[in-house]
Amino acid sequence: MSRMKKIIECVPNFSEGCNPENIEKIVEPFRGKKGVKLLDYQTDEDHNRMVVTVVGEPDALKATVIEAVGCAIDVIDMRSHQGQHPRMGATDVVPFIPIKNVSMEEAIEFSKEVAKEVAQKYSLPIFLYETSASRPARQNLAHIRKGQFEAMAEKIKQPQWKPDFGPQKIHLSAGVTAMGARMPLVAYNVNLDSTRIEIADEIARKVRHISGGLRYCKGIGIELKDRGLVQVSMNMTDYTRTALYRAFELIKVEARRYGVNVIGSEIVGLVPMAAMMDTAAYYLGLEDFSMEQVLEARIWE
Amino acid sequence: MSRMKKIIECVPNFSEGCNPENIEKIVEPFRGKKGVKLLDYQTDEDHNRMVVTVVGEPDALKATVIEAVGCAIDVIDMRSHQGQHPRMGATDVVPFIPIKNVSMEEAIEFSKEVAKEVAQKYSLPIFLYETSASRPARQNLAHIRKGQFEAMAEKIKQPQWKPDFGPQKIHLSAGVTAMGARMPLVAYNVNLDSTRIEIADEIARKVRHISGGLRYCKGIGIELKDRGLVQVSMNMTDYTRTALYRAFELIKVEARRYGVNVIGSEIVGLVPMAAMMDTAAYYLGLEDFSMEQVLEARIWE
Repeated sequence: MSRMKKIIECVPNFSEGCNPENIEKIVEPFRGKKGVKLLDYQTDEDHNRMVVTVVGEPDALKATVIEAVGCAIDVIDMRSHQGQHPRMGATDVVPFIPIKNVSMEEAIEFSKEVAKEVAQKYSLPIFLYETSASRPARQNLAHIRKGQFEAMAEKIKQPQWKPDFGPQKIHLSAGVTAMGARMPLVAYNVNLDSTRIEIADEIARKVRHISGGLRYCKGIGIELKDRGLVQVSMNMTDYTRTALYRAFELIKVEARRYGVNVIGSEIVGLVPMAAMMDTAAYYLGLEDFSMEQVLEARIWE
Repeated sequence: MSRMKKIIECVPNFSEGCNPENIEKIVEPFRGKKGVKLLDYQTDEDHNRMVVTVVGEPDALKATVIEAVGCAIDVIDMRSHQGQHPRMGATDVVPFIPIKNVSMEEAIEFSKEVAKEVAQKYSLPIFLYETSASRPARQNLAHIRKGQFEAMAEKIKQPQWKPDFGPQKIHLSAGVTAMGARMPLVAYNVNLDSTRIEIADEIARKVRHISGGLRYCKGIGIELKDRGLVQVSMNMTDYTRTALYRAFELIKVEARRYGVNVIGSEIVGLVPMAAMMDTAAYYLGLEDFSMEQVLEARIWE
């Protein structure tokens, strides 16, 4: 992909995680398309859900996502769907993430274009969420999805839950869908040399945004019983503003109060190169470092 | 470039840094070739020298380098060459660096193939150097180049200076050339909050390999007069074995003895992504981190 090509990542969640034939039908549109690259798809039978990770140029990505939503409508009937993960539609949620040569404003605009076309093509109600949300109450997916598929037929009739695109009634078999732009999420966990979950919980409360911590950090305490330790498990929701190292160093500061040591950390899944470069540059006190200096970035661009 | 393609970097140094027409003729073979990408070329008039940075797949890169050496022979006459930088040939030195899906052994083999073909095609004597060297005395370029172009006609007659490929006499106008495989170099400098050059020199002596320091680290003290500070200026010759952070932390340790603070560092030019990832992973104490987790690596591969 050449230097100035725009690249957007999309991580659609579909309400099918069991039937291999249906899974394949939904994934099929993402394969072998020019300008689109399927990076991963993970299914979970207990959740009865699939998470697809795909990147692409805007136009190609848009056509592909629209096609896949159609396939999900064809093979999923929410009226008989069961699974542990909260869900409200056959295509449950479709986040768009600006990766390269794309501003957040462009990603928002893109998410609205896709939402509009999907709503028209399939008579599917769409709620814009996250950074694309049309009002603050719709930024949080959990708030939109509250009550899940079973409650949506009634919920959508309320004026404050009129969808952003599509009819003000659910799609009988496919429910409703949330779409929107967001920054890349980095799943980042810090391990503590302690078995006391209350310490991990306390520290999580101190570093996460909602209870007074870092602006773009969500966090909870988690017990890793097999390893005999506890963990502050975080979602970093904008690594460009709340750097990974800041959360790491702050957890070290807070852990001191309990006489507990930080023994390491882990990144789960994918991480943008810039998040790691930023961390290296911080600790080395690098002056004037640019991503253009990374050999692979120069080769691949 | 797809997942399993082999990529080698080549950084040939040519003895022409003044005449724009000649410069363009030497660079031309690297442009617009399938499987080859010209990343950069820098000329220096005082040195009367040009450094080209190019990456490519082995076969395409080989053909291109052979062509460029021919162009350099066409436009450069070492008998009238003047410049501040030591030099011994029109194409002075050609390092090959394994970048992706290429082992050091393969890069050595590749350098020998190129050297053999160049020597045959142009009747040019070639010395294998660095990791490709046929004997320890030829690992170090400075040792091969000692006496420079002017001394080579006599030097090459000595049995211990019989070239690895080509005739045992210099090319009258193009001299001799060194070729060989080496690891990527990272130019890494650490700044000290001091104006005393002897402190930077002392610390450089302690961290560099030759005087008892780190195995893959060269270093000297340098004065940055305009900034009013001194610097330990290093070449990290194998970042996979001597990590950047190790040199940085060791300099901090040594600086303590002089009551001097390390105030930052800088990377000059290109750096392999893995060198930066390794640094980030060290400081965060990352467990089980893999380059496969870097989003861009997944997109670009």
